[in-house]
This record gives sequence, structure tokens and C-alpha cells, in this order.
Amino acid sequence: MADTMNGLKRTNYCTELTIDNIGKEVVVAGWVQKIRNLGNLLFIDLRDRSGILQLAFDDATAREVFEKAETLRGEYVIMAKGVVRKREAINKDIKTGDIEIFVVDLRILGKAQTPPFEITDTTNVKEELRLKYRYLDLRRSEMQRAIQMRHKIVKVARDYYDEHNFLEIETPILIKSTPEGARDYLVPSRLHEGKFYALPQSPQLYKQLLMLSGFDRYLQIARCFRDEDLRADRQPEFTQIDLEMSFADEEDIMCTNEGFIKRVMKDALGVDIETPFRRISYAEAMNRYGSDKPDTRFGLELIDLSDILKNTEFKVFAGAIAGGGSVRAINVKDGAHHLSRKEIDKLTDFVKTYKAKGLAYTRLTEDSETSSFEKFLNEEEKNAIRERMGAKKGDVLLVVADADNNVVYDSLGALRCEMADRLGLIKEGTFDLLWVTDFPLFEYSEEENRYVAKHHPFTMPKVEDIDMVEKDPAHCLARAYDMVMNGCEVGGGSVRINDPELQERMFKALGFTMEDAREKFGFLIDAYKYGAPPHCGMAFGLDRLVMLMLEKDSIRDVIAFPKVQNASEPMSQCPNTVEDKSLRELHIKIDASAQPETK
Amino acid sequence: MADTMNGLKRTNYCTELTIDNIGKEVVVAGWVQKIRNLGNLLFIDLRDRSGILQLAFDDATAREVFEKAETLRGEYVIMAKGVVRKREAINKDIKTGDIEIFVVDLRILGKAQTPPFEITDTTNVKEELRLKYRYLDLRRSEMQRAIQMRHKIVKVARDYYDEHNFLEIETPILIKSTPEGARDYLVPSRLHEGKFYALPQSPQLYKQLLMLSGFDRYLQIARCFRDEDLRADRQPEFTQIDLEMSFADEEDIMCTNEGFIKRVMKDALGVDIETPFRRISYAEAMNRYGSDKPDTRFGLELIDLSDILKNTEFKVFAGAIAGGGSVRAINVKDGAHHLSRKEIDKLTDFVKTYKAKGLAYTRLTEDSETSSFEKFLNEEEKNAIRERMGAKKGDVLLVVADADNNVVYDSLGALRCEMADRLGLIKEGTFDLLWVTDFPLFEYSEEENRYVAKHHPFTMPKVEDIDMVEKDPAHCLARAYDMVMNGCEVGGGSVRINDPELQERMFKALGFTMEDAREKFGFLIDAYKYGAPPHCGMAFGLDRLVMLMLEKDSIRDVIAFPKVQNASEPMSQCPNTVEDKSLRELHIKIDASAQPETK
Repeated sequence: MADTMNGLKRTNYCTELTIDNIGKEVVVAGWVQKIRNLGNLLFIDLRDRSGILQLAFDDATAREVFEKAETLRGEYVIMAKGVVRKREAINKDIKTGDIEIFVVDLRILGKAQTPPFEITDTTNVKEELRLKYRYLDLRRSEMQRAIQMRHKIVKVARDYYDEHNFLEIETPILIKSTPEGARDYLVPSRLHEGKFYALPQSPQLYKQLLMLSGFDRYLQIARCFRDEDLRADRQPEFTQIDLEMSFADEEDIMCTNEGFIKRVMKDALGVDIETPFRRISYAEAMNRYGSDKPDTRFGLELIDLSDILKNTEFKVFAGAIAGGGSVRAINVKDGAHHLSRKEIDKLTDFVKTYKAKGLAYTRLTEDSETSSFEKFLNEEEKNAIRERMGAKKGDVLLVVADADNNVVYDSLGALRCEMADRLGLIKEGTFDLLWVTDFPLFEYSEEENRYVAKHHPFTMPKVEDIDMVEKDPAHCLARAYDMVMNGCEVGGGSVRINDPELQERMFKALGFTMEDAREKFGFLIDAYKYGAPPHCGMAFGLDRLVMLMLEKDSIRDVIAFPKVQNASEPMSQCPNTVEDKSLRELHIKIDASAQPETK
Repeated sequence: MADTMNGLKRTNYCTELTIDNIGKEVVVAGWVQKIRNLGNLLFIDLRDRSGILQLAFDDATAREVFEKAETLRGEYVIMAKGVVRKREAINKDIKTGDIEIFVVDLRILGKAQTPPFEITDTTNVKEELRLKYRYLDLRRSEMQRAIQMRHKIVKVARDYYDEHNFLEIETPILIKSTPEGARDYLVPSRLHEGKFYALPQSPQLYKQLLMLSGFDRYLQIARCFRDEDLRADRQPEFTQIDLEMSFADEEDIMCTNEGFIKRVMKDALGVDIETPFRRISYAEAMNRYGSDKPDTRFGLELIDLSDILKNTEFKVFAGAIAGGGSVRAINVKDGAHHLSRKEIDKLTDFVKTYKAKGLAYTRLTEDSETSSFEKFLNEEEKNAIRERMGAKKGDVLLVVADADNNVVYDSLGALRCEMADRLGLIKEGTFDLLWVTDFPLFEYSEEENRYVAKHHPFTMPKVEDIDMVEKDPAHCLARAYDMVMNGCEVGGGSVRINDPELQERMFKALGFTMEDAREKFGFLIDAYKYGAPPHCGMAFGLDRLVMLMLEKDSIRDVIAFPKVQNASEPMSQCPNTVEDKSLRELHIKIDASAQPETK
């Protein structure tokens, strides 16, 4: 049996103690990080959630305790009483490096087997193993910091929105399945044969109802679920800072949420953020950055060459433009020494993953000029391009032409980020924030052969576009907004339609009859008939916000128990099989015949 | 089309304005609660989440606005600009009863159909209809207050535990199904044919893992799920204030959580609570109150008469005692004028619902004595009982005898609460708090023919009982504790076993081999091998805590969107049917053969 704490009570976390506490009797507790046994002296690095503190044991003056300390091994859990004293050899790497505890009472509270990997940040362990033993991985100071910072960020969020009169209201997790949107997780019902609950993709409908109920300002740090094939940075369950405001418009939303970001960056990271954030329209973002979530920490902006080239003899360019697309380029300033022709070939492969058919280039060094396309242009076109691009010796121009503007945007947008990364144009520790506004209200779905809502069907059109909803949906803009941090969308939302007549027109424009709409959104449509205030809302992706704030590469590094790519959890090995009896109670059985219909 | 806010911005919630604001130009917004049109003057009661404010319209001085106001109907959403002025006829019933806004600009932001019921607290609407139109029901000031108070209570919880170094850490909602405990909600997996996630009944395993990971103090306001047949006061999803502490024992837990209750009662309700709370053992609670969650706001304690009656000739009593049970009674002081013999007969039916075979009584009025059992006793027995019960004229003694003590406890425990209720012994607005400690570690399951854990299998035995775990499980006590408020369990928890050897012995005592245990708890058992600190935890039932604090009768009155008895939600009509395609993707099909049940 292990020792008990009986009679001892921790007085301090490890790193609370400083040189000011010298002479004080303290009790500390934690895990054995490191042992150095010098024969007559023994030193332990004790680790708790706050950090590391040295414990000292002396064979000469406290033999019994010393002998007990000699039995310690890594990851043993101990509690130690002793006196704070100045340390002989100062360790500048740790906060408590100038003190140690001379231990007079040692309790071994939990023994430990040798862990499957060392509990250090420098450990180079495969993520698979880390996740299998997540409870050990979480002991590493890097994970401790991430989870503790996440707590802090969420606490600041709750304080901030509370101060701004937002009420945190819980909405259900077991809700109705709707056929719109991403794939729902379904939950069979035992009491209603053949019927299912869905897990919410977001609390969207409920938060709108809460506005109709008069709660005025709603907040929830809400768990959301999407049964989609996981990309690198997605989780089947994720967390949103979800909010909605009544009697408010986009100005209120932006101001309130800029305030939150300013506050959380300051309180959690000590970083000052300027407000208001810049705002750029969706159209401008696409034109200048090829992305609706532009990273504006660096230049490398897209430049449209279409007007110069629209009559060119060069079929590839002319054809793209004639087909409704464009020719655009970025100028990688001083990029020539980074980008050999071989490197440029690799970039061609890179843009092809974004469906570009190729990458044209001009490479200007001190003593040579090579170009994959200039030979097909006349002198005037060539000079006009060089001039517009501000091309100088040492620069590399990278050009994409396509009849589909989205291909041009996607490929050049990704390429500019890739180049910024390679050329080290992004300063670490900088946080670049902006709003993207004026999104299209609709987008045309080739698959469904109709316009679909870009944001969602409750999004309010811009005032000046309300009359065009039926006549010219392609050019209607939405009162929607995204917040972008360092080239990632961290949040977004919209002003909602609160007029049942306008809502009905929206549904028609989306190709729904009111019967379809009622089938899909049922009670929500009725709800708007009984007095709906103007309202608008927003949701932050919490996992991603925390990841960006802590400059992590993966949201898995800011979630205590994440799932992996195939939506399983390696530690508990879920999902798992269940007893037949359980399935019978739920009126379902396994359908082994069905083929997986994953896309 | 409705008006827009364009140019107007709310300056105040309705009840923020007072007599001190007279002359101030303000903008308010909300719903039309009531209209009084006097022909040339018109008054509106405007309702927002803060309460009611009177708007005044004058045909003589502001005709256009007056005429617009005449088009208003109940539940219209409006925004109004005007000047605060003193009111002619003071209304003492509302906070703003001495002022009104003389309106100069009125915007009709949302029209409203006549709602299916009036939005007032006095409305006597069936809960069914209220829940179908929950978004309207939530407009009632009673529901507004409940949800706003719930926000406040949760905010205080988060602040309090944050101040005490608890970290809020999110644990997964899609977890592994375990066969122990209540019935899990299951979620089919699309990517893993035939496998299922479960929704957590509590974050129990994860919070213990977080202690092993060194987070030291964990908090989560956690959604939990149980697919059980719903009793009146249960929901399929419910919320826990869930916490766990390392290097701590029951004293720390009790002190910390008493502090929370003291704080939340003060901050949310302005009520002072004395700490520390009283503590009584499980055994004492059962003996004195017949319940492990005793309501001690009143007396009516159970009194054991078994020693007096163990040799009685009266077979019913003697048999109960000889069979291992007891004869116990309560004295309903001055109850004779409340309890006619007919009433007592009804109480007999009442105790029968708790499996009692009958209810014996003695009724003492000023001029008569009637008893259902004294005639079977000798004089000595009768006198001894009267004396022990402190029986006086006007009293009624109610007696239950059974060979199963649990029947005696359950029926008399319920009866004393019923009598207190009927006799008005419970003062409203009083909050009675106590800890029940020293629960049995095990209870015998007739169904499984073995001992099962009363709390859960990770609960630490009392130090002095550790050696008896195998030898005498029936008499082992647990380091477990429940917090009881006004006769309801609001929270509970235990010290956990952190020694793998002792855990193994517990599993054996529960009849599990280590293989069984590993099958059931898998990774958790491994986790404890790598250095486990002493730890303990607790969870509050948030819904019930809020309900008790607000003195509501049902947890549905403190949940924004609750489900009803059959686990459905009347508003959205979930659960519902889903497309076959969705089921095929999940590799399941409806098993109509299972059990015919109503759709």
C-alpha cells in the first residue's frame, strides 16, 4: 500500500514559491520528473501543473527521508514537506531555479511503472502513441499549457459576454434531424420505434428561437457535431462560441466581437490588438488574395492581367479570359534565388492540386530572364505585364490562367501562402485580424441545379439587394461577415431575416415551396409569425481560435481527448461494438449488406 | 415590409430607466404587452427581458406617431424613441411604475399574429401547449426569470471554481459504450461498420484521467445523457456541475463545495447560508428520517419501537421484527384534527405505494382514543410506546412494521414528508443543507446475485474498512458523500481509489476478474499504473439545483427546451424519421420485428 496524505496538506503549487519564501515550511505535491542521486545528496525535480520545483534530500541530516527518496522512480506521485532554501546551483531555465525544498517528510502516494514514453516536451513520440496514452501525454508541460490556456480563453469569453449582457443558455444536444447541410450524427430512439434524434451541427435554430423569445443576447460555448469525412483540422465534435443579439446589426456584432478578441488576446496572451479591425469585401478579398479568408500578414497580392491579355494571340490566356475566367499573377519579389526552374516545376504540381492546368512564370535574375509564356506574347503585352507587376531583377512572376475564376483564385491564393511560408515572410507571434463582408447571398449548386444559400437560408440580403432576390440571385449580396485571423476563418455569422414575407421570398428563390420549407424548418417558420425582432449572430470555432492563439499546428493539440482522422479515439478505442440486446431495444439492427457510401 | 431600426439604436433596457432619467431622450425596444387606447391618448406596456415600461402616445402633440401606435397589436415588436417623463397614474406593481416614455419615433420591427395563448404569468395554459410553443412560453416573465437566474447561477459557479484554481476542461460527448450503469444513448458510426459511440452518462472516467494527467482541479458544466424511462423529474439529457480534485480528501471537497453553495445562494438569491453544513451518517439519516436525502426543515422523526415490541403477542409486529425488520413510527403532533379516520385510511393507500403492507395508528383527541393496534398489545407495551413517542392529546401516531427495513424506511420517510406538506410545516424560502456521509460501499443485488458498488467501483472504502472489503462487504462503508438540499440530493461524490492493488481487490469483491474489469474499464485500469494522485470529486445536478433555488416544481421550468415524459420534444417534434439513405450510410436498418411499440 502507498502512503496516505493523512496529516499533510499541500500549501503551495510548485512555482508559487520564490526566493521570498526562504525559511518557510511548505508542503508540495506532484510527480517525480527527474532524479539525481549524488550518493549523499539526492535531488528530485517535482512536477505539478504549475511547473517544476527542486526537492533536496540529505543523507547526513535526514537519513530516513533520504533512504525513502532513494526508492523513488520517474512519475511516482509524492507529497513532500520541507523548508524553502536558496539553491546552490542556480537553474535559469526554470521559474523556481534559485530555490529548493529541503525535505523532512516524504509520502509516496502513488507508484508508477515506467511510462511508454518520457514525459517531456522534447520527446519525439508519434502522435498515435501519444493519443493512445493521452493521460500521460497530457502531463507534458506543452499540453498542460495548452489546456490551461484554453480554460483561460473560455473564462475570458464568458466574463466578457456576461459583462455585455449576454445570457448563457443551454440548448439541446438531442434534436431533430434536418436534411439540409452536413451529415448529422443520428441517435436511435428506444421509445419511438424507427425514429431518431440528431446531434446538433450548431445551435442555429435554437438561438434564433431564443431571440424570438426575447432573451435579447444569447451566448453558449456549445458542442457541435458533424459526421463528415475528417480533414486534417476537423473533429467529429467541436466547440463553438455561439452568440446571437437582438435589436442589433452587423456594426454591433463586429464591435462586440472585436472587443472580445482584443480582450482575450490581452488577458490570455498579453498581446495588444488594434480595433476596429480592417474590413474588406468578399470581392476584394478574392481579387487581391484569391481567398475569402486572406492572410494579410504579407503582400504577394494577386494582380489581374486579363485586360492586358484579352486580345493576346496566346490561346491559353485568351481562351481563359474568353471563357469567363481570367489571367492573374503574383510577383515573388527577390524570389529568383529561391525558385530554381526545378522548384518552379514543383510549384506547378502544387497549383495542380487546386485544379489549375499549369503555372506560367517569368524568372528574372541579375543576368538572365527566363519565361514560360512571354515568347507567346507581343512586346506590348509583355511590357504591360512587367510594368503592372512591378517586376524587377530578382523577381519571379507566377501566373495562372483559367476559364473558371475559382480555379485561378484557389491556386494563386494557396500559392501566395505557400511562397510566404517558404520565404519566411510571416513573422511569428503576429496576429492579423480582419472582417470579410458582403458575401454572395447565394451560390449556384451544379449538383442540385439550383441556387443554394451560401451562409444559410435565414441570412438577410443587403438592403439594396432585397428586390433582386428573385430576379438576379447571382448578384445579391448578404449581410454576412467572417472574422479572419492569420488567414484562417475563426468566426462568422449574419444578420437574420426577421420578416416572414421576405423569408418566404428567400425560400422561393432557393427553389423551395413553403411546404418544402415547412417540412425542413417546421416550427421555426411558425415562430417568426408571432413577433420577431431584428437579430444577428456569430459563432467562433473555439478549437481553431485557441489553436491560432497558441500557434499550434493542429486542433488536436488544444483538445484534451481528440479523435483521429477516422473519427475514432485511440485511448478508449471508441466507437466499439455493443450488445445485441441494446440494439433490439433501439429497434435497429446492423445492416451488413449496405456499402459504405463515403465520398 | 416592416420598418427597420436604421438610424435608431437602443439606449436602455426597459427597467433600467427610473425617475432619475426624467427629461432624457431614450430608445427602447421590445414586445407590445398591452395596449390602452383612450381615444386621444394611447398607452403601451412595452416588454423586454428586463421587464415592463409604459410608452405614451398623444394624438394632440404627435399625431403621426399616435396613428401608427393605433395599428399596434399584442406581441408586435417595436422600437421607440422618446423622452422619459413622470407618469400621471403611478403603477406600484412594476419597477418603472412612476415613469413613462413620451414617444416621438415609433418603428414597427415585426408584426405578430395572435399567439395561441396570452403571454402572462397568470395564464393557465396546459404544459403541453406551452411546450409546443416554447418560444412564446419563454417570453413569460416567470420563464425569463428562471433562465436568467440559471445563467447567473452558472456564472457564479464558473467564477467561484475558477477562483479556487479549477480548470474547465471539455471531455468528449462521443465516447465508448460501457455495459455498466444505466442505459446508454448509442450513436451509430458511419466509418466503423457495426460499431457505436455512446453519449456520456457523466464525464466520470475522463475526469479521473484528468487527475492522473496532473490537472489537479477540474470543472465542467457537462451535458450528460441517460436513456432511462423518465420519471417526473428526469430528462434524457441533463447538466452536471462536475468537478474533481487531486491531493485532496472529503474535507476539501466539502469545504470547497459548501463555499460554492454559500456564494451562489448569496449572489443569485441574496440568501445567507451557514457553513459548515451539518453532517449526518447514512445510518443516522435512515434511522431518523427514513431517507438518505432527509428533509430536516421539520421534525416528524422516525422512532424505532422494535425493542419494545420484539416479544409482543401481536404477530404483525413480532413477525416483522423476527424477520429482520422493524416497527417504527412517527408522531404527528396535533395531527388529530387534520387526520380523520378516513384521512388515515387514505394514508394507508399512500404507504402501500411504498410497499408497506399497512399503516397502524393511534389517534388521540381531547375526548377519545382510537387505535388500530393497541388492542393487540399489553398495557406495558402500549405505555412504553406512548412514552417513547411523547404522545399527547391531539397527536396521531402512525406506525409501519415490515420484515424489510427498507420498506419501513421508504414508507415512513415518504409519509413524514407528506404530513409536513399537508400540515404546512415547511416554511417557504428556507434552504436546509446537509451532508450525508458514510454510505455503504456495496449493496447486494438480488438480480445479479452479487454485491454491486453503491456509488461506483472506484469509490474508496473508509480507512478502517479496507481490510474487510473481501471478508465483510455488507458492513464496509465508503468515503462517499451526498449534499442534500430541502430533502433532495443536489450533489454527490466520493474519494476515488488511487491504488491499483486496492482497486483490484475491489473488483474481486464485486465478482469481477481482472479480465472482466479490463473489458469494462480498459484503459482506465492501465492509466492508474503510471502514478495516480489521491483524488476525489463531486457532481451537482444543475437542473435540480436551479429548480430548488428558484422553488420551482419541475426541472422543465428551468430548462429552455426540455423534453417530455416520453423523451420527445413537442416543439420540434423530435425524434423523427430519417431518410433510408442515412441509415444505409450508418450500416443500420430498422428492426421492426423487435417489439411492437407505438410510433
